[in-house]
Amino acid sequence: MIGTEKIQTMKENTLFFAAMYLEHNHIYGMCDGLIQGGGILKSVYDPDKEKARSLAARFPGAKAVESEEEILKDPEILLVAAAAVPCERCQVGIRCMEAGKDYFTDKGPFTALEQLELARKKVEETGRKYMVYYSERLHSECSVYAGQLVKAGAIGRVLSVTGLGPHRLGNPEERPEWFYEKARYGGIICDIGSHQVEQFLYFTGCEDAKIESARTANYGHPQYPELEDYGDVMLTGDNGSAGYFRVDWFTPDGLSVWGDGRTLILGTEGYIELRKTVNVAADDPQGDLLILVDKEGEKKISCRGTTGYPFFGQLIRDCLDRTETAMTQAHVFKAAQIALQCQEAADRRK
Amino acid sequence: MIGTEKIQTMKENTLFFAAMYLEHNHIYGMCDGLIQGGGILKSVYDPDKEKARSLAARFPGAKAVESEEEILKDPEILLVAAAAVPCERCQVGIRCMEAGKDYFTDKGPFTALEQLELARKKVEETGRKYMVYYSERLHSECSVYAGQLVKAGAIGRVLSVTGLGPHRLGNPEERPEWFYEKARYGGIICDIGSHQVEQFLYFTGCEDAKIESARTANYGHPQYPELEDYGDVMLTGDNGSAGYFRVDWFTPDGLSVWGDGRTLILGTEGYIELRKTVNVAADDPQGDLLILVDKEGEKKISCRGTTGYPFFGQLIRDCLDRTETAMTQAHVFKAAQIALQCQEAADRRK
Repeated sequence: MIGTEKIQTMKENTLFFAAMYLEHNHIYGMCDGLIQGGGILKSVYDPDKEKARSLAARFPGAKAVESEEEILKDPEILLVAAAAVPCERCQVGIRCMEAGKDYFTDKGPFTALEQLELARKKVEETGRKYMVYYSERLHSECSVYAGQLVKAGAIGRVLSVTGLGPHRLGNPEERPEWFYEKARYGGIICDIGSHQVEQFLYFTGCEDAKIESARTANYGHPQYPELEDYGDVMLTGDNGSAGYFRVDWFTPDGLSVWGDGRTLILGTEGYIELRKTVNVAADDPQGDLLILVDKEGEKKISCRGTTGYPFFGQLIRDCLDRTETAMTQAHVFKAAQIALQCQEAADRRK
Repeated sequence: MIGTEKIQTMKENTLFFAAMYLEHNHIYGMCDGLIQGGGILKSVYDPDKEKARSLAARFPGAKAVESEEEILKDPEILLVAAAAVPCERCQVGIRCMEAGKDYFTDKGPFTALEQLELARKKVEETGRKYMVYYSERLHSECSVYAGQLVKAGAIGRVLSVTGLGPHRLGNPEERPEWFYEKARYGGIICDIGSHQVEQFLYFTGCEDAKIESARTANYGHPQYPELEDYGDVMLTGDNGSAGYFRVDWFTPDGLSVWGDGRTLILGTEGYIELRKTVNVAADDPQGDLLILVDKEGEKKISCRGTTGYPFFGQLIRDCLDRTETAMTQAHVFKAAQIALQCQEAADRRK
């Protein structure tokens, strides 16, 4: 029989979380990650009850609830994961933090710099966390391994990071309305570009970056005039490293995955190429492929099933222990800020 | 027995060329290309007689001569190929054109915009050609095939071209002195970046481009303070297409070739990736690999031994027929101009 003391310790080491606002399917990945990291999904809320029930049904023990309030008032819930419409993500976060919860939002975390400032203040005021699901690094084993290799000095000093983030639009009519409204989704750099900014800062070890140039376009979707289907950005890190990324919505139907995402990391002593989702047109097409070229040779390293996704377990410990091991708040906000500033710079060109 | 008339026709259809100033090994590729295209290497000159003899020995019928003058005064020679020290390429070309020869120089064709202006005027004045060996496209079968695919509309409208042009420095002491002197080699964008500018213009079908940002660095070679070991550039084409390229001297010793050059061409209907020199870390490592992803699927196309290098045969016909089928003079000069302007923009940041 377990004594009261033991139960108390277990409770102290258990993180219950909730999921709400299920506008983007990323919420499934977010819940998966947190559960694999040791969290327990307790409650799910969405204005669309069917959507909430459907998510809850996938995770045994989770229960669809009737309102946001039920979650915010539940003292057992320490963390709220959410994938609201992008322009609403900040306000959801502020309500969570005011209710004493940590917040874990889908990317892009904001659609305007003013929102970032509100969030920054609320974090200071409440001591809560405003974390972001930068899935293209955090939920990608080859990216996790690349981080470990870079940290271990496998390619020397990182000089340049080039990121390619193509995405499939799919059947345009299956996308929600907000996907085509600039004020609501924020722009392509602010949205899928935010992954790329985060990766640049992370792999180069920068704390800040200067925007050299940022541009966006609607090259192929005149029927959706507010959709940006292309964006690219050139950055210089505060340690002198060089960055470039491009993002787009032009993944062809024939690609076996949603997007042939790559990251190329050039160092003084070697380079790394990540083929995140697919080794395109190869006999061994599996993604999560890391290619390392150094002074010894060319190495092809399949990362699937190796590193796991340490971010989530670390985030859970951070929520319980009030530490910052998964990712610092400063890094989260800086990545968001640069993406927003790039978006503004691109907007000003129009 | 061949009659006089036939011999006359053969002569009219034969292009004799010379090679001089053998400062870069590209001259071997230039001669190979011209000979495979039907040209006949007649004379070779270099101030270093051993160098001239050594090149001549590789091509039966070619003869090392004692002076540049011997070549310029030879009425049978219509074209001069040269790979002089970059800062001298323009003057060599002007002397060739003044002597009534077409000129085919290694890239980068100039180290300063003033040289370009001199060459432009001399071309107008003499009606001769100032052609450039942009080998990373012209002497690359996968690049030739990419050009054919793009022209045929295989990926729709070209939106964006991303070029990676890493190069191996090798034993730094085996490089000539001019390699480390900025005034003589011109800078990394002006040198190996010129390939990239040319490819951007070619694949996007632009006639001009705006420089968004250009930067260079010496990240890892403080012992050679004037060496730029890194450069990258963001361009916008006059048809709205987007371009980025990076070039560097950081190819690790373990790579099986001199540089893992790539070109990524994104179109509205698909994309192409060129792995020019190596399919890095793959079981089938051969370069000249073209990957085409379109609405039908992912295709891996080995281009080695398929297209050949039509540029050279076309150039020879152009010299004989006074046409512009291989490459227009305007394109050659525009690519050079943009590379020089990028270099200047990068220089101004310092």
